[in-house]
Amino acid sequence: MKFSNIVQKIEPEQSSLVAAADRDPEISGMAAVQEASAGTLSYVEGAKFAKYIETTAASALILPTDSALQAAAEQRGLAWLSARDPRLAFARAIALFYQPFQPPPGIHPSAVIHPTTQLGQQVSIGAHVVIQADVRIGDRVCIHPNVVIYPEAQIGARTILHANCAIHERAQIGADCVIHSGAAIGSEGFGFVPTAEGWEKMHQSGRTVLEDGVEVGCNTAIDRPAVGETWVGRNSKIDNLVHVGHGCQIGEAVVMAGQVGLAGGVTLGRRVILAGQVGLANQTEMGEGAIATSKTGVHGRVAAGEIVSGMPALAHQDYLKYSALRRRLPELLQSLRQIQKQLGLKK
Amino acid sequence: MKFSNIVQKIEPEQSSLVAAADRDPEISGMAAVQEASAGTLSYVEGAKFAKYIETTAASALILPTDSALQAAAEQRGLAWLSARDPRLAFARAIALFYQPFQPPPGIHPSAVIHPTTQLGQQVSIGAHVVIQADVRIGDRVCIHPNVVIYPEAQIGARTILHANCAIHERAQIGADCVIHSGAAIGSEGFGFVPTAEGWEKMHQSGRTVLEDGVEVGCNTAIDRPAVGETWVGRNSKIDNLVHVGHGCQIGEAVVMAGQVGLAGGVTLGRRVILAGQVGLANQTEMGEGAIATSKTGVHGRVAAGEIVSGMPALAHQDYLKYSALRRRLPELLQSLRQIQKQLGLKK
Amino acid sequence: MKFSNIVQKIEPEQSSLVAAADRDPEISGMAAVQEASAGTLSYVEGAKFAKYIETTAASALILPTDSALQAAAEQRGLAWLSARDPRLAFARAIALFYQPFQPPPGIHPSAVIHPTTQLGQQVSIGAHVVIQADVRIGDRVCIHPNVVIYPEAQIGARTILHANCAIHERAQIGADCVIHSGAAIGSEGFGFVPTAEGWEKMHQSGRTVLEDGVEVGCNTAIDRPAVGETWVGRNSKIDNLVHVGHGCQIGEAVVMAGQVGLAGGVTLGRRVILAGQVGLANQTEMGEGAIATSKTGVHGRVAAGEIVSGMPALAHQDYLKYSALRRRLPELLQSLRQIQKQLGLKK
Repeated sequence: MKFSNIVQKIEPEQSSLVAAADRDPEISGMAAVQEASAGTLSYVEGAKFAKYIETTAASALILPTDSALQAAAEQRGLAWLSARDPRLAFARAIALFYQPFQPPPGIHPSAVIHPTTQLGQQVSIGAHVVIQADVRIGDRVCIHPNVVIYPEAQIGARTILHANCAIHERAQIGADCVIHSGAAIGSEGFGFVPTAEGWEKMHQSGRTVLEDGVEVGCNTAIDRPAVGETWVGRNSKIDNLVHVGHGCQIGEAVVMAGQVGLAGGVTLGRRVILAGQVGLANQTEMGEGAIATSKTGVHGRVAAGEIVSGMPALAHQDYLKYSALRRRLPELLQSLRQIQKQLGLKK
Repeated sequence: MKFSNIVQKIEPEQSSLVAAADRDPEISGMAAVQEASAGTLSYVEGAKFAKYIETTAASALILPTDSALQAAAEQRGLAWLSARDPRLAFARAIALFYQPFQPPPGIHPSAVIHPTTQLGQQVSIGAHVVIQADVRIGDRVCIHPNVVIYPEAQIGARTILHANCAIHERAQIGADCVIHSGAAIGSEGFGFVPTAEGWEKMHQSGRTVLEDGVEVGCNTAIDRPAVGETWVGRNSKIDNLVHVGHGCQIGEAVVMAGQVGLAGGVTLGRRVILAGQVGLANQTEMGEGAIATSKTGVHGRVAAGEIVSGMPALAHQDYLKYSALRRRLPELLQSLRQIQKQLGLKK
Repeated sequence: MKFSNIVQKIEPEQSSLVAAADRDPEISGMAAVQEASAGTLSYVEGAKFAKYIETTAASALILPTDSALQAAAEQRGLAWLSARDPRLAFARAIALFYQPFQPPPGIHPSAVIHPTTQLGQQVSIGAHVVIQADVRIGDRVCIHPNVVIYPEAQIGARTILHANCAIHERAQIGADCVIHSGAAIGSEGFGFVPTAEGWEKMHQSGRTVLEDGVEVGCNTAIDRPAVGETWVGRNSKIDNLVHVGHGCQIGEAVVMAGQVGLAGGVTLGRRVILAGQVGLANQTEMGEGAIATSKTGVHGRVAAGEIVSGMPALAHQDYLKYSALRRRLPELLQSLRQIQKQLGLKK
């Protein structure tokens, strides 16, 4: 595909500028800037990566609106494109070259589908899939092999269920969701009441609801509660190996990175971001846009927009100061001893 | 179901008191107190949740033996029940309304069962289950679809194996256990010996044993050891995404919350509690009733009944003091500098 | 098997010494030293475990080259063998007794194998396995039941894929690898670009490559990147429930213990060791032989051979000092207050 064609599709308002530059290489694929070869299109996100413009073998670059970077590309005679969000432009360019694997509509004869199942149009159901009673499957849903769907679950239109995932009883998954391999949605919450004999089970009679556009990573589990619903808002993205406990209420466009863990009854506002291995205690609340940096342990309340770090969590600025001073504790103690000696407080 | 009927079943000794109150609403289901609607039964665990009594739409409440809370319910004209353990009473009331999904006995024709398998009475074996040689399955065991059982495993009576879990060679699972979706029981321990060339495998010839009444969460893995057994005692409850390394010896009624990790050879006494994301190093020992709070990293020995927190773990009281003082480190350092100046120790 | 036979096979240069001792018990199996019974062979790794020599019921011991330990074994009349690496000798002795379960070659009739699949010699393909288009399977590969392989994946000779794992599109797995139950190889990286509406997906058009001799634990996920490759070097060993993000470059003979998490674009040199629950931030680099102790959180660069600990990571020596002093913070503060009073700086 000609570079000019790509520009036309991903940043059309830049077409005339690119045409003026009179460099229009044939682009055969996309690559990271430091690994690119001739014929590929790459991107540079900001000045931090300027050095790669000097050495990249890419034939064309997506650049930010930064005249120094653009001058560097000019000097090397590379085709380039100015984008307000180079990463987004790169993502859109990848989509021109890459067609994700998706099995065609059809139902594999080895799938075991309960006769009460309501199937939408053009669904794709892979080999060895099992669908229990009273399940509803929307149009163009794609269910990869060996998925198991428990009774009364609902799967919205165009949603993709990857291999070996398990959708539990009564779970409701919206449209345009992606559930990755091995994930468990609507599994039984961890509910036990201590008794003299040990632990008595509290049945988890609720269900898990994912709104439209939610993604759930490999081997992640989103439990259902004793009563009511565990809820994940529209467009939220959850990475691999995350644990979402029973009764959590997750807002829209929330992001959870790998191995995040939420105990029960956590409430997260819109656009909360939880970095890798963050843990949230029972009943934690985080307001809209709040952020927990990686490995942070949070309990109680975090206000909207606040950034917290550490275990237990501090305001991020306090955490940075504290982290910098930690290693000076021995020196601090020594200074103190010296003063105490001088003042005759200790020998 | 009439409220008086529920009381009769879950707290019969309260029946006469409830009858005297002469309020007997029809209860159609259970709900959390802040989400309840008319016709539901809810519970309040203690004074902390008193405010919900003012506003709940529930028709009846399970309350603790707390006269202030009971008076508040009276004032609103709600039916209520006094329980020593309101959460336990709530759990028992849920069980009156909720029948967990369980497939009926029978063997799906697509299951692949080795002819040497010993099958108990009234087992339920789902579609696409695979059972290898010399496996023993107890009475009324329920195996959900796509489970794989390796050779020589034993599954005790009434145990439930959820979708896509894998029971490995020689594993022995007791009666009344629940293994949730995607869990791996008796998988190969992580045993490698460093050599000049890299890492040489130490075969894991042992097995994993779960006693009766053990629950294992989604995608949790409980490895088997090189020799001997990994052991989980009666009635222990393990949440999602937990890692139990080879050779661990877990006592009775132990609780591990989500994403806990145990390295090899850990020993836990009865009723130990590990909160979310706790990590235990190789050969850690924790005595009966010891507790590690969330995200704690433990090595060495923790005495019976002790509570530990932090990384590396401190006694919980020390941890609380240290956590409170962390953010004062910058101020502390500044004070010290000031003193040093005054004493002429530094400029 | 006679003890002398075992010695002949695992440490032949010790045979004459053992013969001279004239103690040659029949050995029926292997055991841990503190659990051993008569007729078993066990090992003692070093002086720390000397006490077990006094009490073990094992009939023979593998000992380090430590004359005190050897004298203790002599005194009890035990057969023993001196090994430079007792643990390695023990591993090799286990291999004499233990034959891991491996299904014989053959293809189960319930497996669904795309006609374009290239199958090597003597492969074993279990029940309900699904193999999509254009997959290549090497000689003697063993695929356990319910595994799903997406299109264009390659599996090298003698590699073992355990139950319920998912090998995603284009993944390339070398020879002599072991992928444990429920693992996901080459799954879609977590790539989203923030937009005003929420998060836009960046397609993950790359692939995951595992070189020869790699092991991947249960329910671990190794994602593929947007462009290029996620790479795991020869002989690296990855434990259960590990998350390897898109685009990581892992060197040879790297070890990752349970629940380690790598964000995107991490680079690890040869023989890096990551202990349990370690987390590495985006773009972290660790040089050859560097070590992160358990629960450490690393970002930036760690030099070859360095040991780091804590969150955020410090040099291990600094971490030990800091950890020891943490609990003295209250005392430190008190001393400071006393000094300030004495100097008239505070009341």
